[in-house]
Amino acid sequence: MKQRGLIPRKVKGFRDIDPALNEQRNRLVQVASKVYRSYGFEHWDSPILEYAECLGKYLPDQDTADEGVYSFRNPELEPILDMKGNGLRDSSNNVLMDNHLLSLRYDLTAPLARKYAEELWTGSGQTKSPTLFRRYQYGPVYRFEAKLDPGRYREFWQMDFDTVGSSDVASDAEACCILSDTLEALGLARGSYEIRVNTRNLHKGLFEKLGISDEGVARDVLRVIDKYDKIGEAGIAAELGEGRVDPLSKAKIPGLGMPLDQVQTLVNYVQSCIGVQGRENVLARLAPLLGDTPTGRFGLDELQRIHEILNGLDYLDNRVVFDPSIARGLAYYTGPVFEAVSKLEYRDASGKVRGFGAICGGGRYDGLVEKLLGIKVPATGASIGVDRLLELLRQTQQLEIAATGPVLILVMDQQYMLEYQKFAKELRQAGIAAEVYYGQKSKMKAQMSYADQRQAPVVVIAGGNEFEQGTVSVKDLRRGKELSDQITDRSQWLSDKPAQMEVPRADLVATVKGMLSD
Amino acid sequence: MKQRGLIPRKVKGFRDIDPALNEQRNRLVQVASKVYRSYGFEHWDSPILEYAECLGKYLPDQDTADEGVYSFRNPELEPILDMKGNGLRDSSNNVLMDNHLLSLRYDLTAPLARKYAEELWTGSGQTKSPTLFRRYQYGPVYRFEAKLDPGRYREFWQMDFDTVGSSDVASDAEACCILSDTLEALGLARGSYEIRVNTRNLHKGLFEKLGISDEGVARDVLRVIDKYDKIGEAGIAAELGEGRVDPLSKAKIPGLGMPLDQVQTLVNYVQSCIGVQGRENVLARLAPLLGDTPTGRFGLDELQRIHEILNGLDYLDNRVVFDPSIARGLAYYTGPVFEAVSKLEYRDASGKVRGFGAICGGGRYDGLVEKLLGIKVPATGASIGVDRLLELLRQTQQLEIAATGPVLILVMDQQYMLEYQKFAKELRQAGIAAEVYYGQKSKMKAQMSYADQRQAPVVVIAGGNEFEQGTVSVKDLRRGKELSDQITDRSQWLSDKPAQMEVPRADLVATVKGMLSD
Repeated sequence: MKQRGLIPRKVKGFRDIDPALNEQRNRLVQVASKVYRSYGFEHWDSPILEYAECLGKYLPDQDTADEGVYSFRNPELEPILDMKGNGLRDSSNNVLMDNHLLSLRYDLTAPLARKYAEELWTGSGQTKSPTLFRRYQYGPVYRFEAKLDPGRYREFWQMDFDTVGSSDVASDAEACCILSDTLEALGLARGSYEIRVNTRNLHKGLFEKLGISDEGVARDVLRVIDKYDKIGEAGIAAELGEGRVDPLSKAKIPGLGMPLDQVQTLVNYVQSCIGVQGRENVLARLAPLLGDTPTGRFGLDELQRIHEILNGLDYLDNRVVFDPSIARGLAYYTGPVFEAVSKLEYRDASGKVRGFGAICGGGRYDGLVEKLLGIKVPATGASIGVDRLLELLRQTQQLEIAATGPVLILVMDQQYMLEYQKFAKELRQAGIAAEVYYGQKSKMKAQMSYADQRQAPVVVIAGGNEFEQGTVSVKDLRRGKELSDQITDRSQWLSDKPAQMEVPRADLVATVKGMLSD
Repeated sequence: MKQRGLIPRKVKGFRDIDPALNEQRNRLVQVASKVYRSYGFEHWDSPILEYAECLGKYLPDQDTADEGVYSFRNPELEPILDMKGNGLRDSSNNVLMDNHLLSLRYDLTAPLARKYAEELWTGSGQTKSPTLFRRYQYGPVYRFEAKLDPGRYREFWQMDFDTVGSSDVASDAEACCILSDTLEALGLARGSYEIRVNTRNLHKGLFEKLGISDEGVARDVLRVIDKYDKIGEAGIAAELGEGRVDPLSKAKIPGLGMPLDQVQTLVNYVQSCIGVQGRENVLARLAPLLGDTPTGRFGLDELQRIHEILNGLDYLDNRVVFDPSIARGLAYYTGPVFEAVSKLEYRDASGKVRGFGAICGGGRYDGLVEKLLGIKVPATGASIGVDRLLELLRQTQQLEIAATGPVLILVMDQQYMLEYQKFAKELRQAGIAAEVYYGQKSKMKAQMSYADQRQAPVVVIAGGNEFEQGTVSVKDLRRGKELSDQITDRSQWLSDKPAQMEVPRADLVATVKGMLSD
């Protein structure tokens, strides 16, 4: 049993990132950063570790506390502080000490709220006046999901931008423009993706109309409505009411037991809003249904304002749509919510056609800072699922993978090591990545196999003969590969050494350059 | 006491990274990546979390286990595995489950060893044959140092490159070239820094000669020798022997109690190697002293080989020096070791002149993979202390801080919001970062104060008058700042509005461009 410590392995749900993925991720982050900066957002970064208390208990996509967060005891004793930040004392006047719980950040928004609240915190019970703060951030976040779907990880990257301190719905409209700009800057064709927008106030208005104030019931209702694509209108009516029997599995699915008039209102709502083309049409269909509740009216006005700005800036229905079925995190978002989805599909390993789901999401969250500061601070923003978007770009061949290794200088004889180093140095000075072979297996075959594995485009070969004659041999591996696919006579091939040239030592760099530019 | 959770704060020893530092860090990482790639290294990344067992117990800069590492229980039950990777079973044939300890990575080398070992691991007791692996990596590492010096953090960045699978000392010489190239690519002038090289084999030879095999004693000896700069030859002789009284504090410093002949050999060693200029001179001085021990001879040959390659490639004494006083991690490094130091100094806040210490370090570690795999795999590499190097560049004014915010479009009247958005869009399309003011404080003063805080170079102002006349007002804040430093007549200033122009709406972009290019 002691042996197990000797098994080298990654923690379950974690992974190493290879050079191709690193390059793609860097490119994505740089392209998106440029868009964010053009809108005036600044790049801030925050620690991976935070006090669990400061991260707060609401996860962005679920309403349960703690679950899914990596937390552990702080190894450091720290004073327990009062509201003014002073250490609390016991009857002997000693400062009380405690270990706090530390958490790995589960998103980039909770640390933003902590940072923002920290800036306004005075310790005197009063807080400084809220300021406008616009920042973007990217990096890994951590979720301990007990059940891990294939292709999902517990460490993954997000890239967020947020405007804190603004209640202006224009900043929500702007967030949709930024998402659209970013996806297009990354190469997604217009029409191949969709930014879907809703506002939580429409749902609140709906529940006002229904007289439902219980959040649990509201959540159950939205969950049923969300099944529209799968079970249709009749299925929804049944699951809201008395329940139904699944025609395939014959399983009995219990209903929510809602009265008939409530069920009818909800079915009307679903009929009004699902599958309706055009933002103006969606607004026109919803107005008679929700315009008579104060919150519903407010929500309609939000969408109307967003629509006017988007239209004026030329973000039309082929980029941003209204979709009143979108709910997102109920306890988290307070106003407009949005998500970006790709309409593209791909075939997985088993040949099954699959979609990608949401690759970005966001919305208005006016309550997040309140928990830390006691005052409401309006905020809106969005998050790109970096790894999910990379997967989309990769699966739909929208990402070029540049896979060229360095020129490899073979080591034919250790006594010429300094000369090999000089070859490499000259190539580097000409802007060509070059590496001397340092492996322990010195046979030609092992060296060529390493060149292959590293995707070296060219190898440089020089032994006693070459040094005597003042030459080097240069082999074009890419050309060699092409030619070898065509050969018929193997012995001819071996004696001809096609794609290999012996040139004067002084022509090394020019020869390699020529081969690389072919 | 419940209140403390409401105090927004960072975990002690952690920090937020501001836009200027993010930009500088990105630039550093990109410049260094380019150098590393030119030598054929590939960019790999690894998780922040690892099994504590797989990270191993040796820290790079200290020899004690566990201390300084953030570790916690894995929240997931996992099977206990045997050497073949199969779950061990109890008498009822149930797979035994256990929680393992997880750790935040404390450097980038231990995860590299884990990854490399994982590739060769077969589970059958045999391992695959070692391959050559050259990768670079950068990112945060975590150290729980109980005592935290000012300006130090528990989360900081490293940037490493390593060659695993080569015993060739040429790859150690190459590491020194790479460090030198990188520092110069980052703007450090030749002569302002020094790569210091030694090999652990010289110290091993020295202890062979002295007949000292106890590692603890060896460590104590090296610790005394390291004080040469402070206490001189006599002080060293005393601390190796009977001890001494500190002349300032009058404190009694106990000696190691070594016999006189050992003390004499060590003093000779120190005399031979400290402060000697020129790599060849250092070798000539050490040869008679250590050349008669097998390990000392081996170490001298290593340095001789490194010297030949460096000389042949033009890395002379003004870039790389031999310094036999360098020890670094005793239990960790097995051959050549190197570190880069800046010779520059700066004045701290209190006016005291200070140096920077080592900004990069590395060496050969042939034992690291063995612990995980049971076979020795030779390896060498180096690590740049990214944050320490940034501090150096900043303190010595070798880093330009680009601090220009976006052009700010003031919101004079909400009814024109769409028009303001159009201004911003046009500016962005011309490659100019632009932001519409979304703050809740709508007064002119608050908006201008935000422009100031964001370091906006230009603000765009348009209210009812401007829209009526088809114009916009554009104010050059940088020029305004210059002029306001010269004003004598404030009322004149207010009526003239210097550095502000009212131009036709169509000239907005050209006007802003003109102001930015001044």
